Amino acid sequence: MMQSRTHTCGELRLGDAGKQVKIVGWLENVREVGAELAFAVIRDFYGTTQVVAQSAEMVKELHAINKESTISVKGTVRERSSKNPKLPTGEIEVVPEKIEILGRCRYNELPFQINHSRQADEAVRLKYRYLDLRNPEVKKNIILRCQVVAALRKAMTDHGFLEITTPILTASSPEGARDYLVPARNHPGKFYALPQAPQQFKQLLMTSGFDRYFQIAPCFRDEDARADRSPGEFYQLDMEMAFATQDDVFAVLEDVLPPIFAEYGLYNRASSAPFVRIPYTEAMEKYGSDKPDLRIDLQVQDVTAVLGGCGFEPFADGLVKAVVVSGFQETRKFIDKTLAAVETQSGNKAYWFRLDESGELVGGISKFVAPIREQVVSALGLKAGDFVALSAGKRDAALKTAGVLVKTLGAAVPGHMDKEQYAFCWIVDFPMYEIGDESGELEFCHNPFSMPSGGLDVLLKAEAGEIDPLAITADQYDLVCNGVELSSGAVRNHDPEIMIKAFELVRLGEDDVKAKFPAMYNAFCYGAPPHAGIAPGVDRMVMLLAGEDSIREIIPFPMNKNAQDVMMGAPSEVSEKQLQELHIALVKAEE
Amino acid sequence: MMQSRTHTCGELRLGDAGKQVKIVGWLENVREVGAELAFAVIRDFYGTTQVVAQSAEMVKELHAINKESTISVKGTVRERSSKNPKLPTGEIEVVPEKIEILGRCRYNELPFQINHSRQADEAVRLKYRYLDLRNPEVKKNIILRCQVVAALRKAMTDHGFLEITTPILTASSPEGARDYLVPARNHPGKFYALPQAPQQFKQLLMTSGFDRYFQIAPCFRDEDARADRSPGEFYQLDMEMAFATQDDVFAVLEDVLPPIFAEYGLYNRASSAPFVRIPYTEAMEKYGSDKPDLRIDLQVQDVTAVLGGCGFEPFADGLVKAVVVSGFQETRKFIDKTLAAVETQSGNKAYWFRLDESGELVGGISKFVAPIREQVVSALGLKAGDFVALSAGKRDAALKTAGVLVKTLGAAVPGHMDKEQYAFCWIVDFPMYEIGDESGELEFCHNPFSMPSGGLDVLLKAEAGEIDPLAITADQYDLVCNGVELSSGAVRNHDPEIMIKAFELVRLGEDDVKAKFPAMYNAFCYGAPPHAGIAPGVDRMVMLLAGEDSIREIIPFPMNKNAQDVMMGAPSEVSEKQLQELHIALVKAEE
Repeated sequence: MMQSRTHTCGELRLGDAGKQVKIVGWLENVREVGAELAFAVIRDFYGTTQVVAQSAEMVKELHAINKESTISVKGTVRERSSKNPKLPTGEIEVVPEKIEILGRCRYNELPFQINHSRQADEAVRLKYRYLDLRNPEVKKNIILRCQVVAALRKAMTDHGFLEITTPILTASSPEGARDYLVPARNHPGKFYALPQAPQQFKQLLMTSGFDRYFQIAPCFRDEDARADRSPGEFYQLDMEMAFATQDDVFAVLEDVLPPIFAEYGLYNRASSAPFVRIPYTEAMEKYGSDKPDLRIDLQVQDVTAVLGGCGFEPFADGLVKAVVVSGFQETRKFIDKTLAAVETQSGNKAYWFRLDESGELVGGISKFVAPIREQVVSALGLKAGDFVALSAGKRDAALKTAGVLVKTLGAAVPGHMDKEQYAFCWIVDFPMYEIGDESGELEFCHNPFSMPSGGLDVLLKAEAGEIDPLAITADQYDLVCNGVELSSGAVRNHDPEIMIKAFELVRLGEDDVKAKFPAMYNAFCYGAPPHAGIAPGVDRMVMLLAGEDSIREIIPFPMNKNAQDVMMGAPSEVSEKQLQELHIALVKAEE
Repeated sequence: MMQSRTHTCGELRLGDAGKQVKIVGWLENVREVGAELAFAVIRDFYGTTQVVAQSAEMVKELHAINKESTISVKGTVRERSSKNPKLPTGEIEVVPEKIEILGRCRYNELPFQINHSRQADEAVRLKYRYLDLRNPEVKKNIILRCQVVAALRKAMTDHGFLEITTPILTASSPEGARDYLVPARNHPGKFYALPQAPQQFKQLLMTSGFDRYFQIAPCFRDEDARADRSPGEFYQLDMEMAFATQDDVFAVLEDVLPPIFAEYGLYNRASSAPFVRIPYTEAMEKYGSDKPDLRIDLQVQDVTAVLGGCGFEPFADGLVKAVVVSGFQETRKFIDKTLAAVETQSGNKAYWFRLDESGELVGGISKFVAPIREQVVSALGLKAGDFVALSAGKRDAALKTAGVLVKTLGAAVPGHMDKEQYAFCWIVDFPMYEIGDESGELEFCHNPFSMPSGGLDVLLKAEAGEIDPLAITADQYDLVCNGVELSSGAVRNHDPEIMIKAFELVRLGEDDVKAKFPAMYNAFCYGAPPHAGIAPGVDRMVMLLAGEDSIREIIPFPMNKNAQDVMMGAPSEVSEKQLQELHIALVKAEE
């Protein structure tokens, strides 16, 4: 008999009737029907079992125990007279011979009802997280997370990847966010930094001769909380492959992710390999976003040529973008509400007109469209029942608003979103350089350490003025699922010569490369393999799979939005002696 | 073709002769036999392959490439004329058609020869760890570690344990060691601490209703380096079970560890369940150690009654302990050297005499033994060829020295150690209390939060003076393998009432309990299950399996003994701006 029981609370069935059993768990509830009859519910990790007390003595004994105490019940299984088909153990109950208190709950009142904890105030839930987690609805997300992580590990291992743990106490790395620092006791004035990502270590592993690396890696960024990122620490499925191309990385994740998403997710359908690949520029033009939700069948069209000169003032300058929604039967109220939401989200105005069921041009800016109705209908291929949403302005603003129109209308208008699936795509061919808003000069667009497509040759051509540097793309890619960016990845620039040339195009040089990642640069001078990788966010994946909007629902012990663990009391004050040992002093906030 | 190759460098066999292939890897070596013949070795993660250049042009091309550059070789496989049976690919070679440099090694000279890096200075190895790791002998320990960790995860998951990740940025916990602190930017004057172990979180998980928890858990202690502990971070196989007894914990590890040790270790034999269980007091008396190496057949015997009054001055006070080594044929020089080593290690003198092959009493203190030869022979059951090592003094010192005698003689004298195996045992029944050396009063012996055997009853009896508190044992246990302590574990004290009583016996109270682990104490007041666990050290296990004495050989990127990562440059100075954001200032060391 392991763990003090013959059976768990989720295990007994009709076939066990007559057996002598012992169960242990939390006293979830007691319903006293009379002085000689009471029904108790015992809950453990695996389920709940009904215990029926049918003597005055037993009823009294149960009555004396505070709910949420842990108890053991020794008794006999019998068939229930009134069965509960919704409960796996609903056909039986246990008639107790002996009840023992194992861990007394001292309190008669709890901060919230366990099975309704999700409705409680979040601050109270986090303070009493050990009670919150007793709620099966809360616990199931944590179990899901564990299962997903275990499945990811297994799949990566099955694909020949080695999980290698990289240091947590390490050096500051300029990943763009703020580092968490740790004073070094033996090195006065010096600090370790917690890794923002194991990026440098995984590239050093490639340079060390490892071939397929992965890690469920803790990452630390001292940034303020967001809905999809906890303050402090988060986890990513970090991976890297030697001698690899973009296609090699894609092939692995296209094999690893869909079965896990289909098995553990809200939806049991996921894209199969190969995922759609969309060049960055095309994604922006077609979906108004580099994070398209491919479950939606709406797309953006450019109608500047047709509508730019229609006389509607906002269309006069810049671009006009249209999103056509067919089979539109929504009310005027719906339209106003939906476009108002789009405007709030995008910060730009949105416009509309429609062809009603009889093909009549109505609503919105239809009076401006009427004179050129034929051209517009032909350009957009409109038919009766089509709703046309429009955005206008400079390219970025017009596209962004159109992108919000796609996502909002796609989700809200019936028939345009095949929702119950995980739709993956790759965004590829990101531009390497851009003209900086402030500087007006050439700057790196995203990651300066990605490999430019075409390598050294293309950089030399740009340097010689033979090609436009703005046309250079990087071997960099994003993985997107249902409109959520799961990760960026890249073929890395492993060649010091190409690195220096890439930096020279933006008026920097070898010293700047070295200053940024000295260990990596040194290592690359000793013969590095080409390599590529990616690092999908574990928290974001689990949120998608669980269908949760708050990251705190999928972390066992999350910090609050203010980066505090109110249960543990972190952060907290420390002793003067500790500060002295670390050679630091507190600086009082200015008055 | 994945990762730019048709085959890895460990893959080609005689059956592949005639195939067109492409391999990629590091140019390990080039042996030029003439202007038109050169043999190159290409190395990747999986092995090495010989490439033979047989044209002046190809020889010249190879000659121009610095060793340790990464290259690709396109060519044809053919049977070697002179085969190398020691190499998996030793029957073939590749005749290149095209060689391409993928990542140039800029240097002609390396800090050390890759395949002899273990002989290089450790500081240089750590600085160029990415070169050191290219040495297959170095790399294999890291691969072993990854495999062992993956096997542990799989075995725990197969046993129904859920891997739950607990926070790394958390509150200070009084585990006995120094915390690493992290200044909290948004909370001036406050600090997070990195967890010394997830002890509190795993106990909170039990209180939250989880049943079987485990984690390959990073732990952080700001302690100076030791041979078996890296400064900074280390990993443990942390586990905990609800409603569990000591036997439940034992059963899991007795099932999980032996197959993994037998599969991945130096030796392919490991104890099978159940492991020997030795009460702490018995271990001390029998082996002079609570970390006995059961591969050794020697034991300690008490001979105070026989030898205390023999007239040998050091035996006059305190105890006399004997270790009998049968079939002893070593030289006098061996004896002197071995006992000198024992004295150095234990800090106490060791003595000896022996019965030679003809049963003659000779050597050491034999002149004191001679007059009572019969009693001594009878008490120890001596026969010809027996060597008797002795220690004396107060109990602790005499036992400790005897323990060192057991381990040293067992390892050095042939026939007393069945070395090629992993011999596990449990040390159980640790005393709960002791009389403090300094205070002279009752104090906790080990962990005050372990459950006293017998629970509240036994504490009440001790309080009432009915039993000696020194006779109370705790449900606490150590796991020992081959003389190495892998972990302590315990049935936890989950009951606030018993906690307070346990503290009252050492003149403390509820406030002290609360002050030590406030979150856990609060949680336990809401109904906690009895629970038990353990946390074997991953680093120590891997050291045992790899047969390595330095922990730095089994960590991918270890810090040096001075807690520095010389490759990454950690710890390092940070900017004034960073310090300001964290509300701290440096304190200059005093002159």
